Amino acid sequence: MKILRVDMDRLQVEWEPVSPEYERLGGRALIAGIMLAEVPPECDALGPKNKLVFAPGLLGGTNLSSSGRLSVGGKSPLTNGVKEANTGGSGGADLARLGVKALVVEGQPADGKLYQLYISDAGAELLPADDWRGLGTYATAARAQERWGAGCTVISIGQAGEFLMGAAGVACTGVGEQDCRVAARGGLGALMGSKGLKAIVLDAAPGTALAAEPVPLADPELFRASARRFANELIESPKTGRKGAMHTYGTSAIVAAVNEMGAFPTRNFSEGSFEAADNLTGQRLREITLARGGKVGTTCMAGCVIACCNVFVDEAGEPIVSTLQYETIGLLGANLGIGSLDEVARLNRLCNDYGLDSIEAGAALGVAAEAGLARFGDEAGFAALLDEIAAGSVMGRVLGQGAAVAGRVLGVSRVPVAKGQAMPAYDPRALKGNGVTYGTSPMGADHTAGNAFGSRGVVNPLGIEGQRELSLDLQLGAAMLDTTGLCLFSRPPVFGDPQLMVDLLNGRYGWGWSVADLEEMKKSVLRMELEFNEKAGHTAADARMPEYMTREPLPPHNTVFDVPDSEMDAVFAAL
Amino acid sequence: MKILRVDMDRLQVEWEPVSPEYERLGGRALIAGIMLAEVPPECDALGPKNKLVFAPGLLGGTNLSSSGRLSVGGKSPLTNGVKEANTGGSGGADLARLGVKALVVEGQPADGKLYQLYISDAGAELLPADDWRGLGTYATAARAQERWGAGCTVISIGQAGEFLMGAAGVACTGVGEQDCRVAARGGLGALMGSKGLKAIVLDAAPGTALAAEPVPLADPELFRASARRFANELIESPKTGRKGAMHTYGTSAIVAAVNEMGAFPTRNFSEGSFEAADNLTGQRLREITLARGGKVGTTCMAGCVIACCNVFVDEAGEPIVSTLQYETIGLLGANLGIGSLDEVARLNRLCNDYGLDSIEAGAALGVAAEAGLARFGDEAGFAALLDEIAAGSVMGRVLGQGAAVAGRVLGVSRVPVAKGQAMPAYDPRALKGNGVTYGTSPMGADHTAGNAFGSRGVVNPLGIEGQRELSLDLQLGAAMLDTTGLCLFSRPPVFGDPQLMVDLLNGRYGWGWSVADLEEMKKSVLRMELEFNEKAGHTAADARMPEYMTREPLPPHNTVFDVPDSEMDAVFAAL
Repeated sequence: MKILRVDMDRLQVEWEPVSPEYERLGGRALIAGIMLAEVPPECDALGPKNKLVFAPGLLGGTNLSSSGRLSVGGKSPLTNGVKEANTGGSGGADLARLGVKALVVEGQPADGKLYQLYISDAGAELLPADDWRGLGTYATAARAQERWGAGCTVISIGQAGEFLMGAAGVACTGVGEQDCRVAARGGLGALMGSKGLKAIVLDAAPGTALAAEPVPLADPELFRASARRFANELIESPKTGRKGAMHTYGTSAIVAAVNEMGAFPTRNFSEGSFEAADNLTGQRLREITLARGGKVGTTCMAGCVIACCNVFVDEAGEPIVSTLQYETIGLLGANLGIGSLDEVARLNRLCNDYGLDSIEAGAALGVAAEAGLARFGDEAGFAALLDEIAAGSVMGRVLGQGAAVAGRVLGVSRVPVAKGQAMPAYDPRALKGNGVTYGTSPMGADHTAGNAFGSRGVVNPLGIEGQRELSLDLQLGAAMLDTTGLCLFSRPPVFGDPQLMVDLLNGRYGWGWSVADLEEMKKSVLRMELEFNEKAGHTAADARMPEYMTREPLPPHNTVFDVPDSEMDAVFAAL
Repeated sequence: MKILRVDMDRLQVEWEPVSPEYERLGGRALIAGIMLAEVPPECDALGPKNKLVFAPGLLGGTNLSSSGRLSVGGKSPLTNGVKEANTGGSGGADLARLGVKALVVEGQPADGKLYQLYISDAGAELLPADDWRGLGTYATAARAQERWGAGCTVISIGQAGEFLMGAAGVACTGVGEQDCRVAARGGLGALMGSKGLKAIVLDAAPGTALAAEPVPLADPELFRASARRFANELIESPKTGRKGAMHTYGTSAIVAAVNEMGAFPTRNFSEGSFEAADNLTGQRLREITLARGGKVGTTCMAGCVIACCNVFVDEAGEPIVSTLQYETIGLLGANLGIGSLDEVARLNRLCNDYGLDSIEAGAALGVAAEAGLARFGDEAGFAALLDEIAAGSVMGRVLGQGAAVAGRVLGVSRVPVAKGQAMPAYDPRALKGNGVTYGTSPMGADHTAGNAFGSRGVVNPLGIEGQRELSLDLQLGAAMLDTTGLCLFSRPPVFGDPQLMVDLLNGRYGWGWSVADLEEMKKSVLRMELEFNEKAGHTAADARMPEYMTREPLPPHNTVFDVPDSEMDAVFAAL
């Protein structure tokens, strides 16, 4: 595999061998390594010194189930630290099959124009795309697939990324029609916009020679046996198997439980349970979808045995979004006082089309409602605000910058952010482990960086004890998944048996790793990220929940976030 | 003297003896001391844990010339560090004469209403002022003086402070009619707004018993002799005397020189000299003013022997602003491409009335022009934007937050800020010592925190060598002036002979200080502030110029800011 350098200053591409320092890194770890080695941590996140990196995980491109997530990263304009956001879809596998260990976008075009990058087995080339300016991500994908073939993967930004908005994500097509996956968090779409890159087209479609030939394996037998075991465990698990909640209901399976535990963000995080939550549950989503001829149990990546996705359709059976997910239901639903999956799905489609992180945008809309710019529960009002974002009006530019800027500009003090980034759909006053993760993770408030929801039976979510240790453990696990390209949902087999992950890596690369090497890898990811962030200016003062959450009790438990600063500051003591 | 505590939670006032820790602190030093001892550095600057402090300098309330500056401070919503901004006018002297060593405003009113604080020799009381909501500072002062007497000093916020805007300052009436002085920098008006405090009325007017009785002196003879020597030196100096540039032209005396050296911010800091600068000079200001029957050589504080102020009038002889100053001419003039003092004065009046820092507002308007929201040179366009700020529209709220937020929201990369605060009217690419001060001073980009302009003959403003040492020296000097309440213009006698300052302090307080004690005091101010800021999360990454200034050459010298990071980071090595 090679590193593909894209120099936007000179509009040139260059293939580079992988240096020994990067050899054993992938996905999130490779992003951390590149950022630390090549990018001045103090740089302007939207300036020419920052780099935008796309990297498949270490296991990307193989036939391992659920292993094709695409990591996107750089210095975040929201957190001002290193950021990795990953997405399903076909981008991770295709990039790996095209032999790209990392795609590194550098500099900025002097002409201020937009470009597209086309990568196939014949090489890579930068081409003009200024006529795509102002297109949403659906239209961009359609134009690109029209030109390069329907089987191509298209990674793109919408209007939000062009406008350099902090809520802008990077969209990626998936295996199904209308699929829109987003590497959403941290404003990486703005970073892509700052590079003048409208789209990346990966031409490794089914049917080409590339797709047929998976990435090489050092020990095919070990790898295949381990991959089989991995898939079987997922299939046989009551959670991830065909009868499990994940396949049956998708990520929205947890709506009822989070609402029940009082951590479901409602009306700008002012309450923890939503009176209309019953209309937002996974069960309801399944019923509606099946009744209308939509789909449930679809996959975002070819060959995934979990298959947690859906194609949510309107009453006429026309797709609205694929896939409708938990965090979106939380942030664009309860958080906006909206108790209808149709309304959530329509707002979600707007976010996808405009290239917006539905979490950051939903949180900004919640703040806007608190400032009186829309009414909670009013889909049309929120849709109009999203349209302002796409139009680039001053109002839209405020909201498009995300919740923190919106709160500051609009004079709202109840702003659910950590490290400048909006919280996902778990209020940390009722799930305190997540507060520890939001505050301390190098990723900021992020539902995939060490989510304590799944451990609510192990550590009391309302208590203080054990949260610190739990958060660190989950953060290390997340680092491993994000480095190998595995989906968060496929964690049980490798969390339960680390040797399985070691076997997969040894089968793929022949490194002869032990479990100790794997543990060291997990730690090293966090260490690199923490080092970058420290040099970028992060301090303990950033590892805090918003002050109002320490003062304002959250119904129904009426708890505040009270994990002491000393606990927050000790999370990485043993790292 | 006493500390006057104003508890906005319970709407109560309390007089408190001065604790030994605060005894030898005044003005800026006292603010630093109170912040460090009483305010959690990580707190939300606009939340209830922050405190707003008003303090005269150590020599405030005496008859010493130029000693009545009023320090206003707290944790800044712009820099997120401790901030002191001071102002002329009658506030400093009056507060000292009312026996108030510091007025400390704490908490936030639960009812969200506005209040006024009235202080006289009979005591202090909090009274409703919600019917003043939405008034500008001129109208607020008029209402307050109507109620409490024309001789009262009125300290107030305008619409900008009520809207919690980062560009909001704290306005203070002066000795002349229509005088509007502003403790402008750092968004302290927003802090005052967050406390629900619309105005503070100081009733120590000429004619009352209080005014007739100056503050007590420990050694009246020593003090009076030293004060006489101080005044004489100012009067006899070719700079500050009656024939000097300061008295003759006021602060605008330096327009021509800064323009000549290529450091005069022009059209959003894109050039360093302005083709119409001749129309903005101190000479021009004097000519126009005298021809129209305005005034030059007026004072902002009773008894000041320098008298550098003016009453700038329109063609009909009606006052527009009092006083029109250099930084304002730079930021609302050349920086907006405006080459007319009348136009600058009218924009300045709007800023004063709305309670805006003319530096921060001018910088935000420059960024707005770069984003296409107004045309450089178009007064009416900029006035309309200022009106948006006062109206609290979304556009106005963006600009009212200052240059950094405006740049981020509007997608502009050329944003002249340091530590989140707009630069005053010296481009650091052509006056590099100021870049060192902007970056390293605990105050952020501030023209009174260690301004290297006056030392341009000693240290080459375009060179690197000596800037670090110069900046530290100037920062220490500024700390002394801001602690004692002296005007920056009155520095020559005490900079030239530190013993004179020691004699003044010993004459006032009988501390028996030596020059070494004075030197230690200067250092301790910076040390306290740096400690607070470090705990608040400031790091070396904050001690930088905006990245574009290190890359984009500034005409006419075509220099970039190239003082190495290592030099910036070594400024306080010997502190």
